[in-house]
Amino acid sequence: MPRNLKLTLRYDGSAFHGWQFQPNCITVEEQLKRACFQILREEVKITSCSRTDAGVHANMFCCNFKTNCERENSKIIQGLNAVLPESVAVYGCDDVSNDFHARYSCKGKEYIYKIWNERQRNPFYNKYALHFPRILDEAMLDKAAKAFIGEHDFASFCSSGSSVLSTVRTVYDFSVERRDKLVVFKVCANGFLYNMVRIMAGTLLDINDGKIAPDSISDIINSKKRERAGITAPPSGLYLNRVFYEEGEIESGK
Amino acid sequence: MPRNLKLTLRYDGSAFHGWQFQPNCITVEEQLKRACFQILREEVKITSCSRTDAGVHANMFCCNFKTNCERENSKIIQGLNAVLPESVAVYGCDDVSNDFHARYSCKGKEYIYKIWNERQRNPFYNKYALHFPRILDEAMLDKAAKAFIGEHDFASFCSSGSSVLSTVRTVYDFSVERRDKLVVFKVCANGFLYNMVRIMAGTLLDINDGKIAPDSISDIINSKKRERAGITAPPSGLYLNRVFYEEGEIESGK
Repeated sequence: MPRNLKLTLRYDGSAFHGWQFQPNCITVEEQLKRACFQILREEVKITSCSRTDAGVHANMFCCNFKTNCERENSKIIQGLNAVLPESVAVYGCDDVSNDFHARYSCKGKEYIYKIWNERQRNPFYNKYALHFPRILDEAMLDKAAKAFIGEHDFASFCSSGSSVLSTVRTVYDFSVERRDKLVVFKVCANGFLYNMVRIMAGTLLDINDGKIAPDSISDIINSKKRERAGITAPPSGLYLNRVFYEEGEIESGK
Repeated sequence: MPRNLKLTLRYDGSAFHGWQFQPNCITVEEQLKRACFQILREEVKITSCSRTDAGVHANMFCCNFKTNCERENSKIIQGLNAVLPESVAVYGCDDVSNDFHARYSCKGKEYIYKIWNERQRNPFYNKYALHFPRILDEAMLDKAAKAFIGEHDFASFCSSGSSVLSTVRTVYDFSVERRDKLVVFKVCANGFLYNMVRIMAGTLLDINDGKIAPDSISDIINSKKRERAGITAPPSGLYLNRVFYEEGEIESGK
């Protein structure tokens, strides 16, 4: 019986047209599949925890595939990193049970959205954070964002073009923190709709600019109307930060 | 009488062959001079706080020049940032006294050296930190590094090719700190010799690897022999972090 291998990786999304394979585009999946073929000498079918859009980054991304390759896990990691482009690195390779599925077994995910909050742009963040030149009131936004927490129908925070059956998701936590001139939105949920975090981020930025009232997030959720929410914030600030496969990981905030 | 303008900037050194003008190389000075010509409509002579090597970054870098341009400082910043490449951003423009000299008026500087300390490389740090896969003992290195503090002849920590009259410098502070998987060396001194921070960093890495004894930094300093110190660590981890023009700034650690 083939092994079921789970890979954990990190990638700089500015180098890719997102995760998922597309003809004539450079995607992370395509690069990883190519690297697997070189190292495992097998064509593998990769199942992923999610799909990230073009320009979105990952500090943690999980996927799995079946393989008959018998190499040690540490050797597989070294081999893949030797052939993958510099913008991708694998840092975990684990044997998992046969029924493990990177998407269906996933219990939750955490995203962060980084904002460089200074008048002038920061050369180190051109592709790694949104540049927002007006002062962000992180305490006010943190308070407003708590309205996202809980089980809600997030249809207002979903871009069209999505084909999900249900738009109900449970947000476990949402925080807004300042680290000097960097402001970070952090959201943990059991799942996310298409562009959900980017619309949440855009809504908070509109609240900061006075275009949306700070206490209206619940109303926006209840309206189930995309047009009531704010803009879709650009992809460069977004990072898939953690992927949880055990309930305990989420509760402990590990 | 012309104004004396002090600029404060930030740059991603991976895009440049260092600060200083060189024929047939892209340098920060050349880009800034070109931007000044476009915005001030004048050829300016730029004096800088220091010269950084190819690949070395700056979170803060100061320079000054005389100009007859009468535009407001905030307009000069906006103008320069509009024409500078993405890898450079000006965030300060101040009128200073006629005798201010970015290099001679400088009272001290702070450099940081970033190390990504995990088995696998980090795609976000390819050009922004040294990748060091073996475990760094930050507490031991922090203790060892305290021997750098004080007024010493740092000839052992100076690459050849330098033409300075004296190799005596005063190091005000040296610390080694861990922020999760990132280890940061931070050093503040009244001045630095050619490659001094990179040789200090390389020496600490050699101490970590057991090639140099932790308590031998004073001996290495006293020997005044470059070959007693460690390797010159690569430029990608090095950042000019702060430049001080007032004694008070250094003491307060502002």
